[in-house]
Amino acid sequence: MTYSLAIHGGAGTILKSLMTPEREAAFHAGLARALMAGEEVLRDGGLALDAVVASVSVLEDDPLFNAGRGAVFTSNGEQEMDAAVMEGQTRKAGAVAGVCGPRNPVQLARAIMQRTEHVMLIGPNALDIARAEGLALEDKHYFFTQTRWDALQETLKLRAEGKEPDDPARRHGTVGAVARDVRGTLAAATSTGGMTAKAPGRVGDTPVIGAGTFADNDTCAVSCTGHGEVFIRWNAAAEIAARMRYAHETLQQAADHIVHTVLAPNDGSGGLVAIDRDGNVTMPFNSPGMYRGVVSSQAKAETFIF
Amino acid sequence: MTYSLAIHGGAGTILKSLMTPEREAAFHAGLARALMAGEEVLRDGGLALDAVVASVSVLEDDPLFNAGRGAVFTSNGEQEMDAAVMEGQTRKAGAVAGVCGPRNPVQLARAIMQRTEHVMLIGPNALDIARAEGLALEDKHYFFTQTRWDALQETLKLRAEGKEPDDPARRHGTVGAVARDVRGTLAAATSTGGMTAKAPGRVGDTPVIGAGTFADNDTCAVSCTGHGEVFIRWNAAAEIAARMRYAHETLQQAADHIVHTVLAPNDGSGGLVAIDRDGNVTMPFNSPGMYRGVVSSQAKAETFIF
Repeated sequence: MTYSLAIHGGAGTILKSLMTPEREAAFHAGLARALMAGEEVLRDGGLALDAVVASVSVLEDDPLFNAGRGAVFTSNGEQEMDAAVMEGQTRKAGAVAGVCGPRNPVQLARAIMQRTEHVMLIGPNALDIARAEGLALEDKHYFFTQTRWDALQETLKLRAEGKEPDDPARRHGTVGAVARDVRGTLAAATSTGGMTAKAPGRVGDTPVIGAGTFADNDTCAVSCTGHGEVFIRWNAAAEIAARMRYAHETLQQAADHIVHTVLAPNDGSGGLVAIDRDGNVTMPFNSPGMYRGVVSSQAKAETFIF
Repeated sequence: MTYSLAIHGGAGTILKSLMTPEREAAFHAGLARALMAGEEVLRDGGLALDAVVASVSVLEDDPLFNAGRGAVFTSNGEQEMDAAVMEGQTRKAGAVAGVCGPRNPVQLARAIMQRTEHVMLIGPNALDIARAEGLALEDKHYFFTQTRWDALQETLKLRAEGKEPDDPARRHGTVGAVARDVRGTLAAATSTGGMTAKAPGRVGDTPVIGAGTFADNDTCAVSCTGHGEVFIRWNAAAEIAARMRYAHETLQQAADHIVHTVLAPNDGSGGLVAIDRDGNVTMPFNSPGMYRGVVSSQAKAETFIF
């Protein structure tokens, strides 16, 4: 009757030299709150699915992280959010792409999984489901943060001058969680605002089941953060499961291989959190840092950045 | 210096008893034209990517098939098309979801792959890329077909009466192609109008790389057609590649396993066409029929329905 939970708040160019003690403490506190919300579900015997949605909802509500409130802006100054959930026993999944409105896009992804016959929805009809489900909807002011707006202006300025850095790690960020509940069921959830100054309509790996989000009780649950296009092309999350299933690798072997040997050399900066059916957790990344945390019925919560 | 090409025009409830000789002949002729267009590219030493796009474009132009002209209607009487391409040497991919406008959505998917840094685009920005690329755009009248409109009305009538058949095979259809060119490079392309009376904004497996479309020179290229939600949840196309890569199965073993042992018992009616790096082709399906065809440098074109 054990449980485990791991979360991430994005990976990328997190330079220790640019991090103030106050800012670092705020990130740790945000991660700790997200762990606490998910653990509360698991400790009470709740579902892994509900735990990962609880954790991700807290990260979405926190403007420090690029999802929900605090989502980055597209090149035309809009916010377009993607989210997905997957449950490992049934392999049911829900995903939404390109929405702005639901306070917690991850909860809309869960509603799509639970209330429709579909896996992935885009556009206004997805918002209709949020309304029918009674999910909180917010206006643009809620999602706006000055920091993200300034980041867009800076990126657009550099782009206009032809000086936009190639490093995609500069521009990404995603939040996610994986959990194993006391029944042994796995789940994964991921949510993102995408990349600063992304093309409107661009969809990354987050809502692509098998790429940014995946769960299967026989192998593992995975939530990714990174250069989404590369994670899609290399089928990142499901490939970890495949290596466990067919090559009989451990979770850590499989996840390390994908992050360091497959993604890193193919411009796939980023990382992921993953959990196997025994509750083992791994959180590999190939970028300078990844906001992350882990808690289990055996060990108290810990959060990390570098 | 050999090449191979396989195509499909959708799988589902194709009942021999309801098929007239004229209609059957028209399907065979449509498939043969698509094979011819792709083979012309391959025979001239062209790229697998361009061959699959050529074949799929012919199927999109043919109102008999559910893609491009002849796409089915959503529950609110609109047409929303999805398409994807993937190239096996670079594992570059392009996908578009929920568009109505480009005459050949598959060509827009290729443009997204070749002209942007992104893999997947949705909405109006995707159409901007079609315009920038000079792709042909059409209005609603071009895409309208009476048969699809009547199918929508019938489905909505049955739905209102609570008599809509559960069988998802009644409602799907997709076109696709896989090829190996004389260089040994693989590619896959898929295009669809989705399911009759689908929820607006619903995205199936077609544009989900790893689910409905996948290509990797080390293993295989795959294009699927069927109950998309199930193909997404089981990561259908990439799982065939994973079984070849890690469990050392042949293409046929891996594809048969996914179609008959994984998808069929999980409500995943449909089928796929797949090709390996030696040019072997397999076209398994678990539905009563699948429009399909194959041609290679060694064998003349053949088309099949049942």
